[in-house]
This record gives sequence, C-alpha cells and structure tokens, in this order.
Amino acid sequence: MDTRGVFISLEGIDGSGKSTLARSLVDALAQKHQVLGLREPGGTVISEKIREMLLDVRNDGIIGKAEAMLYAAARCQLVEEVIRPGLDRGTIIIADRYLDSTVAYQGYGRGLDLGFLEDLNRLCTGGLKPDLTLLLDLDPQEALLRRSEEIPDRLEQEGLAFQIRIREGYLDLWDKEPERIKRLDATHSPEFLLQEALLLVEKLLAE
Amino acid sequence: MDTRGVFISLEGIDGSGKSTLARSLVDALAQKHQVLGLREPGGTVISEKIREMLLDVRNDGIIGKAEAMLYAAARCQLVEEVIRPGLDRGTIIIADRYLDSTVAYQGYGRGLDLGFLEDLNRLCTGGLKPDLTLLLDLDPQEALLRRSEEIPDRLEQEGLAFQIRIREGYLDLWDKEPERIKRLDATHSPEFLLQEALLLVEKLLAE
Repeated sequence: MDTRGVFISLEGIDGSGKSTLARSLVDALAQKHQVLGLREPGGTVISEKIREMLLDVRNDGIIGKAEAMLYAAARCQLVEEVIRPGLDRGTIIIADRYLDSTVAYQGYGRGLDLGFLEDLNRLCTGGLKPDLTLLLDLDPQEALLRRSEEIPDRLEQEGLAFQIRIREGYLDLWDKEPERIKRLDATHSPEFLLQEALLLVEKLLAE
Repeated sequence: MDTRGVFISLEGIDGSGKSTLARSLVDALAQKHQVLGLREPGGTVISEKIREMLLDVRNDGIIGKAEAMLYAAARCQLVEEVIRPGLDRGTIIIADRYLDSTVAYQGYGRGLDLGFLEDLNRLCTGGLKPDLTLLLDLDPQEALLRRSEEIPDRLEQEGLAFQIRIREGYLDLWDKEPERIKRLDATHSPEFLLQEALLLVEKLLAE
C-alpha cells in the first residue's frame, strides 16, 4: 500500500442514497484507517462563504456560467486546502459529490456547454481526479417515490425530467471512464451497498 | 460605421491615471455617442456581491487560484449581463480594467501560472476581447511619487517591486498584441492623453 491516501467520490441523482452511503463508508473505514468525509460545496471557510453567496444570489439572475465558476472557486480552495494535503498525509478522502456532479447537473441537467465545464473542472482541480468514483444508479421515478415519502411537494414532472437528464449524464460518464467509475445498483439495501463499496475500496487500497 | 458597439478597455499600473482618463473619455464621447463606463470587479448586483466577498475572505487564507476564479465569475456575469447586450445595442463600452489586468496583476504580479489565467479568461468571457485597449504606461517609481502626495504610507519597496512586475506584464502583452493594445505615455498631461485617446477611438469608430 502506497503512503499516499486515496480519493473516493460518491455520485448519483437526488434520492439515490449517496449521502447515506458516504456516511456509513466513512464510519466503517474509520475503524482501520485515517478517513475524511467531505461534502461539496463547502468544507473550507471560504467555500462555505461561497456556498452562502450562491444561495443569496440565486434570485438576482446569476447566469449559469458565472454560477459554475463560483462552484469552481469553492472546489479549487477545497482541493488545495484540504484534499491535496489530506492525500499527502495518507488520508482516505470520501467526497459526497465532486467533478462528475458538475458535468451531470450543470451540463446534462441545465444544458451548459460540456467543453466549458470540462475545462473549468480541469482548471479548478489542477487535474486531480478521484481514484475511485461510486455511482449510485437509480431510476429517477424510483428516486422521486423514495423522496415523496418525506417531501411530497417535490414530486414534480419538471423535476423528474431534470433528474432523467442527470442520470443520462452519469451513465455517459460511466461509459467513458469505466475504470474509475463503478456503477452500484441503488435499489439494493444500504447494508448491501456498503459491503459492495467496501470491497471496491479495499481492492483499491491493496493496489 | 457598424451598428455593433465598440469595446474599449483601459489598463495600467496603480497611479497611472487610468481611472481619470476613463472618466474623461466617457464624458467626451457621451456628447456624440451612447457610452457606458464600467469598473471591474463590479457592475452587476452579483459582481458587487462577489467583490464584497473577496474583501471579506482575503483574511481567511484564500488561495490565488480560487481568488482568480471569483474574479472570473464576476467578469463572466458582467460580460453576459452588461457588455454583450450593450455592444448589441451599439453602445461604446469603456472598461476601467479588463482581461489584461488579470494577466498583469495575478500572473506577473503574484506569480500565478499564465496558462491557467489565459484559459480562465477565455472561459469567463467566451473569448470576448476589447476592440481597443489603452495602456497607460508609467515608470512605477514615478507612479509611486504621484500617489505618495496623496497617501504617503503606501510608498513601500515591496509595493514598488510588485508594480515593476505588473508593468513588465503590461509591456509583454503590448508586445504580443500591438494591434489591439496601444501604449500611451502616461507622463503626458490628462488633457493631452484624452486627445490621444479620442483620436484612437475615432479611428476605431470610422473602421
């Protein structure tokens, strides 16, 4: 095992169980390893301020490209201040969303130019990609039903079409980078998904 | 004369008289044309909020690349919300600083990678460059003396070395794009500089 840490991101549409898996994965790995769980946007003082501002300016007509640049600024700070130093110390970084979310949500979901987003992603991370990305894949209809039990008013057709585009984006990314991105069937139980994820992580750590 | 407006930026080190010329140029041109004066960062609700945040986070250890991305986000919003629509309406846009400031200040001044800044500039403007850039060139020693009459405590050697690097950056940019960037000798009087600037603008408008 390398002394450098490993960088794992979790991706998926809203309601795919991604954040639940991220938390349980951090807890399980923390028994044997040095682990750091991150959630974007946020994770540094500056990134949190950018996050606040994004919520604040959303009603002032911010354009998609400027919004993407603000996310990129937050991610840039997170990469340089937290992720790179963490990896250098040998930490396992578990990120609840990273680069692929930008492409899936802002590219496929909101229709921003994919080339623009890829260039921006490369600039803000200096090319740092996760060693492993766990994609929790779920039919958006199913995801909406799951969420509707908690928050019924979010069950909208507009929301569904948006989530369908995002899922397509994730599957395209998986298709392009099958070595890095591993698709997990998110209809499985949280316990099963955690075991699947742990197997993939242990395999990565053994490399 | 085209129905599309023209886009003019003013550049130069601190104390070169750039803002004075920008104001007098706007006033002089406004007698015959539709003119809009802009000052970066700022110029839109969102850009002003980003500007406030930049002032706010500067003490929290923001890294250079993240800072550059925040400036880029503000510029992106300004380009899409103000500059492009203004040019489409046939307006003359006079910008007190634009792309070249990023390269001169953050690249040559603070040592950020020039390739990174050029890529970022291209992304945030969609490739929109000024039709004409007036570079007010001045020896930084001279500029410091000018400013010292107003604010003596800013006369620092560290500040001087920084301004010398910035001037070198501007002169390199001028060297690369002599068609777009016109160097004005900033030791001339404000009245003389205004006449020189007006001649260049009138020539551009006649094209």
